[in-house]
Amino acid sequence: MVKISLRVSMIIIGDELLNAKINDLNLQILAKEIAPLGFSFKKCTVLGDKFDQVTDEIQKQSKENDILIITGGLGPTKDDLTKSIIANALGVSLVENELAREYAIKQYANFGREWSKENSHYHMMPEGSLPLYNPAGMAPGIHAKIDKCEVFCTPGVPRECQAMVRETIVPMLKDRAQSGHELFICRTHSIPEETIFFKLCPNLWETLEEFGKVSSLPIISGVDITVDLRPEHQNDESRQRLKVILEETPLKDNIWTYGPRNIEEVIVHEASAKGLTIGFAESCTGGLASSTITDVSGSSAVFLGSVVSYANSIKESIIHVKEETLKENGAVSIETASEMANGARKSLGADIVISYTGIAGPGGATPGKPVGTVCIGVATKNGVSASRYEFRGDRKRLKNKFCQQGLIDLLNEIRSS
Amino acid sequence: MVKISLRVSMIIIGDELLNAKINDLNLQILAKEIAPLGFSFKKCTVLGDKFDQVTDEIQKQSKENDILIITGGLGPTKDDLTKSIIANALGVSLVENELAREYAIKQYANFGREWSKENSHYHMMPEGSLPLYNPAGMAPGIHAKIDKCEVFCTPGVPRECQAMVRETIVPMLKDRAQSGHELFICRTHSIPEETIFFKLCPNLWETLEEFGKVSSLPIISGVDITVDLRPEHQNDESRQRLKVILEETPLKDNIWTYGPRNIEEVIVHEASAKGLTIGFAESCTGGLASSTITDVSGSSAVFLGSVVSYANSIKESIIHVKEETLKENGAVSIETASEMANGARKSLGADIVISYTGIAGPGGATPGKPVGTVCIGVATKNGVSASRYEFRGDRKRLKNKFCQQGLIDLLNEIRSS
Repeated sequence: MVKISLRVSMIIIGDELLNAKINDLNLQILAKEIAPLGFSFKKCTVLGDKFDQVTDEIQKQSKENDILIITGGLGPTKDDLTKSIIANALGVSLVENELAREYAIKQYANFGREWSKENSHYHMMPEGSLPLYNPAGMAPGIHAKIDKCEVFCTPGVPRECQAMVRETIVPMLKDRAQSGHELFICRTHSIPEETIFFKLCPNLWETLEEFGKVSSLPIISGVDITVDLRPEHQNDESRQRLKVILEETPLKDNIWTYGPRNIEEVIVHEASAKGLTIGFAESCTGGLASSTITDVSGSSAVFLGSVVSYANSIKESIIHVKEETLKENGAVSIETASEMANGARKSLGADIVISYTGIAGPGGATPGKPVGTVCIGVATKNGVSASRYEFRGDRKRLKNKFCQQGLIDLLNEIRSS
Repeated sequence: MVKISLRVSMIIIGDELLNAKINDLNLQILAKEIAPLGFSFKKCTVLGDKFDQVTDEIQKQSKENDILIITGGLGPTKDDLTKSIIANALGVSLVENELAREYAIKQYANFGREWSKENSHYHMMPEGSLPLYNPAGMAPGIHAKIDKCEVFCTPGVPRECQAMVRETIVPMLKDRAQSGHELFICRTHSIPEETIFFKLCPNLWETLEEFGKVSSLPIISGVDITVDLRPEHQNDESRQRLKVILEETPLKDNIWTYGPRNIEEVIVHEASAKGLTIGFAESCTGGLASSTITDVSGSSAVFLGSVVSYANSIKESIIHVKEETLKENGAVSIETASEMANGARKSLGADIVISYTGIAGPGGATPGKPVGTVCIGVATKNGVSASRYEFRGDRKRLKNKFCQQGLIDLLNEIRSS
C-alpha cells in the first residue's frame, strides 16, 4: 500500500495573540482533533487582523498544502475580516447564503434570541463557499476550495473552534485520511534531560531510534521520552520490548507511566481501582492540587475534599496543627507538614492525605528557607512522613512544581498501599 | 519625529507543538517581554524539528524582517537542530567558542555539576555568531546576523526562553526600539460580544475608533474591549473621555475594571485596601477559586483559607451544612450554597466567604439541574445570599466559568463593603 501523506497546515488570525493579550489554545486543540485521522500539522502561522498580510499568507499556503485550517476573525465585530479575505482570495463577493441564514436563525433560537440581518452578517458568505454549522456558538464557519487546497475557517474562540472541527470538519476529512501516527510515550520525573541522555543512559537514544523517531521533552516535573513508532513497530511486541529496554536503565524508578495520561488521571484511576480515598491540606499551593485532581472526570469517587490552610489560624483551628509546632519550627517545616497531613486526614476522613507547606515567593523567605522550599507530608492509617524539597522559579511555576511533587508522592503512596 | 517601525517576527520550533503534546506558551511570553520596547510581532510561525523546512523558513523570514526570534531546538538531545540550521543558513560550520564554553562551565557549576565536552555540545556555536547567556538553564542562545536581519535563538523551555529574552535579549534590543503602543482596555462581564455591539451600544465601535484601532475579545467571563491608542490620544484626558463614553452606555454596570489586571489581582488589591479577609467553600470548583486567588503575590494579606468540600460528608463535618438541607434540597441548591458560605465563614473566620456548589459534568445532572448549573453563596457579617446560574461547556470550562462568576460576586461584595 502506498501512503499518500496529505499536507495540512493552520493559520491563526488575531491581533490579541501577537500583542500578548491571550495565549493561543487552538493549535493544540486542533492537533489533538486531527491526530486520530493520521494528520499532523506541517506548519502553523499566527497573523494579526491585517487584510493584506492574511490574504497573502492564505494564497501562499493554499499552494503548499492540501488542507488549510484557518481560525479566528469570523465574529460579528468589525475587526473580524476572515470572510472578506476568503472572498478576496477566491475573487468573489460576499452574498446572502440560504443555509447560513438557516444556521443563524437556529443558533440564535438555541440561545433564546431572535436573529435578524441587523444583528449580524452571519447570513453572508463568500460566493460559492459552504457555511459550516457551529455547534457551540453563533458564527458559522466556511468551507471553500482555493486552487487545489481545501480551506476550512472556524471561529477563534477555542470552544467553538473545537466543536466545529470535531463535529463538522473531522467527519468531512475522514475520507481524506490515511493511517495514523502512533506515539510510544514514557513519562519520567525528577531527572533532568541531559542527565538522562548523557550520564545515566548514554546509549538510550540510539537504542530507541531503532523503533522510530525519538524526541525528548522536559515537562514541569520531569521528562517525557517519545518514540513515533514506525509502522513495523506499531504492535504489542515492540511496545513491550521498549518497556523492557527502559526498565533495564537507571530510569526505572523514575518512570511513572507510559502513555499520554496526566499524573492526576493516573492517580484517580489507580486510587479508584484500589478503593482508596484522598484529600489534601494545602498551604502554599493554595488549592491547586485539589483543583488539578478535580479536573479529572470521575474524581469524586476518590477525592473527598481538602483544607486550604493559607493562614496559620486555619492550620490551628481546622486541621489542629499545634501552636507550639508552628512557633518552634515555623509554618514551613517537616513538623508542620506532618501535623497538617495527620490533622487533615482526621478532619477529612480520607485514606491518604498529602499536605503542602512552602514558600512560593516572591516574599516570605527566611534564613535557611529560601523561596522554593516546600515540605510535603503524607499521612495514611499507618502513620505520617514528610520530606523537604527545593525548587526554582517564579510564583506560578513554584506552585506547579510543589503540586506535581506532591502528586508524585501521592501516586507512590497509592501504589504501595 | 519620523518613527521607523521595525519588523519583528518569531519562529517556534518543536514537533511537540504540532502534534498536540504541549501548548505553546512562548509567543505570549515574548510578546509581553518586547511590548515595553514598542515591538509587537508581525507574524509567528510554528514548525516541526525538520532541518530543511526550518532552514527555508529562516531564510525567507530573515529577508522580510529586521529582527527574528527563534525558540526551541537548542537542548542537548539529538532532536535539537537549531544550531546546525543557523550554521547552515549562515553558510558556516559549528566551531568551538570560548565564551560558550565559559557559559557552560559557569551554568553547570550553578546547578552543582561539572561540565565536560562529553556531557553536551554547549561549547559549539555557528562560526561568527555570539552565544547568549542563559540565566535559567544550561543551553546558551545564539545571536547572529543573516543578511540584514538580526536573529536571536533561545531555548524552547518557557522559563529559560523568558529569562534569556528578559535579561539578555531585551537589553540588546533597547537601542533599536521605537516608542510603544498604548492599549486602553475595558473589561466587562456577563454580556455577549454581539449584544454589546449590535443591541446595547450600536455606535460604540465607531465612537471608540476615533481614539485608535478597536478590538473586541470574548474572554471566559465576558468581553474585553481594547483601543490601541493613536499617539495623540496617549494621555490622561483621552483615557478619561473614553471612560466617560463607556460609562454612559448600558455597559456601565458590567465594567469591572480598566487595564490589563485580572479579576484576582483586582480582588486582592481592593480587599487589601479595605482591610477585608476572604475565604471560599468550594465543591464543584474543587479548589480552583482558592488557587486562582493565591496566584497573586500578596494574596496572603487577604486570603485566609478555604474548605474544598467535594464529598457531602465534608460539607457536613467541617462547614456544618445540615443533613436535612442536603436531603431536602440536594447538594446543588441555593439552600446548600447558603449554608456552605455561612458555615465556612464561621470555620475560617473570614469577613467574606464565597461558596460554590454545582455540576461540572459530564455526569451528575438531575432533572431540573443540568450540567452547568451552579449555586454561588456570599456570606458576610450582614448575612448570606445565594444565586443560581447556568453555563455551558465541558468540565474544565465549567469549572472556570463557575470560578469567574464567584470572583465577580466577590468583587461586587468587596466594593459594596
